[in-house]
Amino acid sequence: MNMDQALQELLDDLAIANRILVNEGVLDGFGHISVRHDQQPGRFLIARSMAPGLVTADDIVVCDLDGNVHDERGRKTYVERFIHSEIYRARPDVMAVIHSHSPAVIPFGVTGQRLRPICHMSGFLGAQVPVFEIRHSAGEVTDLLIRNQALGQALAQSLGGAAVALMRGHGNVVVGFSIQQVVFRAIYTESNARLQSEAARLGEITFLTDAEAQATSDMNDMHLDRPWEMWKRNALAG
Amino acid sequence: MNMDQALQELLDDLAIANRILVNEGVLDGFGHISVRHDQQPGRFLIARSMAPGLVTADDIVVCDLDGNVHDERGRKTYVERFIHSEIYRARPDVMAVIHSHSPAVIPFGVTGQRLRPICHMSGFLGAQVPVFEIRHSAGEVTDLLIRNQALGQALAQSLGGAAVALMRGHGNVVVGFSIQQVVFRAIYTESNARLQSEAARLGEITFLTDAEAQATSDMNDMHLDRPWEMWKRNALAG
Amino acid sequence: MNMDQALQELLDDLAIANRILVNEGVLDGFGHISVRHDQQPGRFLIARSMAPGLVTADDIVVCDLDGNVHDERGRKTYVERFIHSEIYRARPDVMAVIHSHSPAVIPFGVTGQRLRPICHMSGFLGAQVPVFEIRHSAGEVTDLLIRNQALGQALAQSLGGAAVALMRGHGNVVVGFSIQQVVFRAIYTESNARLQSEAARLGEITFLTDAEAQATSDMNDMHLDRPWEMWKRNALAG
Amino acid sequence: MNMDQALQELLDDLAIANRILVNEGVLDGFGHISVRHDQQPGRFLIARSMAPGLVTADDIVVCDLDGNVHDERGRKTYVERFIHSEIYRARPDVMAVIHSHSPAVIPFGVTGQRLRPICHMSGFLGAQVPVFEIRHSAGEVTDLLIRNQALGQALAQSLGGAAVALMRGHGNVVVGFSIQQVVFRAIYTESNARLQSEAARLGEITFLTDAEAQATSDMNDMHLDRPWEMWKRNALAG
Repeated sequence: MNMDQALQELLDDLAIANRILVNEGVLDGFGHISVRHDQQPGRFLIARSMAPGLVTADDIVVCDLDGNVHDERGRKTYVERFIHSEIYRARPDVMAVIHSHSPAVIPFGVTGQRLRPICHMSGFLGAQVPVFEIRHSAGEVTDLLIRNQALGQALAQSLGGAAVALMRGHGNVVVGFSIQQVVFRAIYTESNARLQSEAARLGEITFLTDAEAQATSDMNDMHLDRPWEMWKRNALAG
Repeated sequence: MNMDQALQELLDDLAIANRILVNEGVLDGFGHISVRHDQQPGRFLIARSMAPGLVTADDIVVCDLDGNVHDERGRKTYVERFIHSEIYRARPDVMAVIHSHSPAVIPFGVTGQRLRPICHMSGFLGAQVPVFEIRHSAGEVTDLLIRNQALGQALAQSLGGAAVALMRGHGNVVVGFSIQQVVFRAIYTESNARLQSEAARLGEITFLTDAEAQATSDMNDMHLDRPWEMWKRNALAG
Repeated sequence: MNMDQALQELLDDLAIANRILVNEGVLDGFGHISVRHDQQPGRFLIARSMAPGLVTADDIVVCDLDGNVHDERGRKTYVERFIHSEIYRARPDVMAVIHSHSPAVIPFGVTGQRLRPICHMSGFLGAQVPVFEIRHSAGEVTDLLIRNQALGQALAQSLGGAAVALMRGHGNVVVGFSIQQVVFRAIYTESNARLQSEAARLGEITFLTDAEAQATSDMNDMHLDRPWEMWKRNALAG
Repeated sequence: MNMDQALQELLDDLAIANRILVNEGVLDGFGHISVRHDQQPGRFLIARSMAPGLVTADDIVVCDLDGNVHDERGRKTYVERFIHSEIYRARPDVMAVIHSHSPAVIPFGVTGQRLRPICHMSGFLGAQVPVFEIRHSAGEVTDLLIRNQALGQALAQSLGGAAVALMRGHGNVVVGFSIQQVVFRAIYTESNARLQSEAARLGEITFLTDAEAQATSDMNDMHLDRPWEMWKRNALAG
């Protein structure tokens, strides 16, 4: 596969990932997924500012880590592109980023209850999931959006080395080493939130130990193809 | 765009708004949406009395602020048209009104728990949402419907300057400066109710501050097109 | 409309009612709806023993109030036909009966929490809904089915003059003066259960007063056509 | 029906059972169903390692009770085949096994709340459902998968003579005397978990007595065809 083919594959996967995330209830009219450029690590690929359910490969633009779009057609991307740029800057291991308002996760960002891995599909959540409180960086009068580099950096700092960070009153961000992995993680973050919310009312929960979380996360990373193909098929059919 | 074109666009938007609200689970066989007439501020447009899921532009009639329908074909509209007429009378800023029984909101109208903005998509809810108790105006033997001008006025008074008012044991009313805005608000009122109900059982909730509510509301008002186009496409496809 | 036409219409309505109830989530592979014969009040019409989602007018048989099927083709109906026969015997005002396992209602049959009308769509529930405990009639070793006349009579006695009775660990029975009304009631019984279950965790609930329940029930009975036509369209499309 | 016809029917039923379980929300991209070989009780039929929603009769392989696949084409089956092999070894009465992550059941595996039969459709759950804790067999550092014979035996021991066993932080296993019965049980295990979770917050639950559980289980076993045909039709249509 030559360089052009590899890039085209990345564009195609990013386009279908948008549709998968809408179809699986992670994104609605808002939210976005990006992937680091395969040949220029200081740039990433993301859709122009539009509803994710309509994204095709032709809608994807190139953005650098300062949040500048490089596009011959002069297209723009999302206001909150700094979520992506600053995480790519802070985390060289991260190759793909999703920002969503996936619904079951919201309650864990606005209460004291921390999101933790309840089953083997969500071991990637680790010991517990950090919560980013924008008030600590920008006070109590913001519109909660990550509108600039400083806020992006603050969010990246909250994320630290984790796979997921919640954003209070807003949504969450998920990172991974590939489009397939980050999609898997976003879908199972939502699933874990639903299950934990149900379990919390039945009694005290036995979460995964740290070692179980690590072992299940490693195991799932070896089986990313199977659910990806299923979600792809469902998104194309739905 | 001439006057006829502007009116036709309003009729088309009102018709598709009916279908959007059914498709997104805000309306079922009952409930209605109206828009103030673009050339006659003392009149509004609303479907004749029928299931909202079937409304076309041809089903829309003109009603005045006393609740009288002006229709050459002698068609009638909903019994509860006074919800609309009295809010348009009391609130010159309001250009569109939705009355629905959207399900997740009902519990907040019959308990002490007040609906408040839990995330940046529903900042328009403001500090908190008023609840209209029909017993205070008409006693304990009504059928809960807003059947006349007096009840419409009492409801408009409860609403005050807010975007949303709940109606105890009945449903809610949502207002906006356009069809697109009022549809956005109705959908995210339902969404906020679902999220708040889930979060309430996890612990104490950090709601938006008043300043955050205002800032996020202003921000969302600049992005009404994107979700509108998505909901429209889904309604036409579904 | 002559006698044959009236009967054919009843058969058609009963067949489509089966499909509506499946489509709206009241029935699944089990449960049944019957209507009293329009010319022979001592008999009723009900599908032969089969999945309700597949019932056509041709699948409907005639049953008498002793539970005997009168069918030239020798077809049989459901084991639990005594639910229907004994309610028709005890309640001359009842023209249609539904027995279902509609899911949100089950928890109210197995806990101390009583089902009560939470909003104006379900005023027909009245002051509160009786619960039939089969152990009081037949001890603790039954399979919970209403297998004979004695159990049917005990259930009818629990129902009394109400519109709905719950059956502990089993399901519920709903009665009405027409197919349209009983379908409306079954769908809104399920809806009320969902809403009441959600509201119960938010705090103390303000239910309809008895007078509100009566007034809203009377009001809804004048508007049965609109939701019926919508449910019918959805069932035929789905 | 000769031997070849009987086997072909088993293969066809196993393939459609995979699709039914996906369509009814018991399986997603993971999980599996097997059936004991009709002529070789020391072997069982199961799909090769793939997403259950895509399984056809041609994808099914033969596996022995030591977990070895016998396939001319050299295909492999799931890592967790030892769930099936060790249960078939320990339970001669078992003819079919499902392992799933069906969502409503997960909370009952990670809390002190035990899954018990709440209504007549799930009497097969018996007095209460055992929970398998892998830590007791393999410590706190596993990936929770049943990767070998020893873990399969430990799980089979937890199951004992029951119809269902939960697997902490992972999923559950359901057994039956036929494909039709095990599918019925898996679907109603999920349903019972949803209902019990709802009922638990309304108050103390009256579960089925042991005698009721037995009687309803026996009764349902005589009516497995009706829901099977419905689920099959829905899976083929969906």
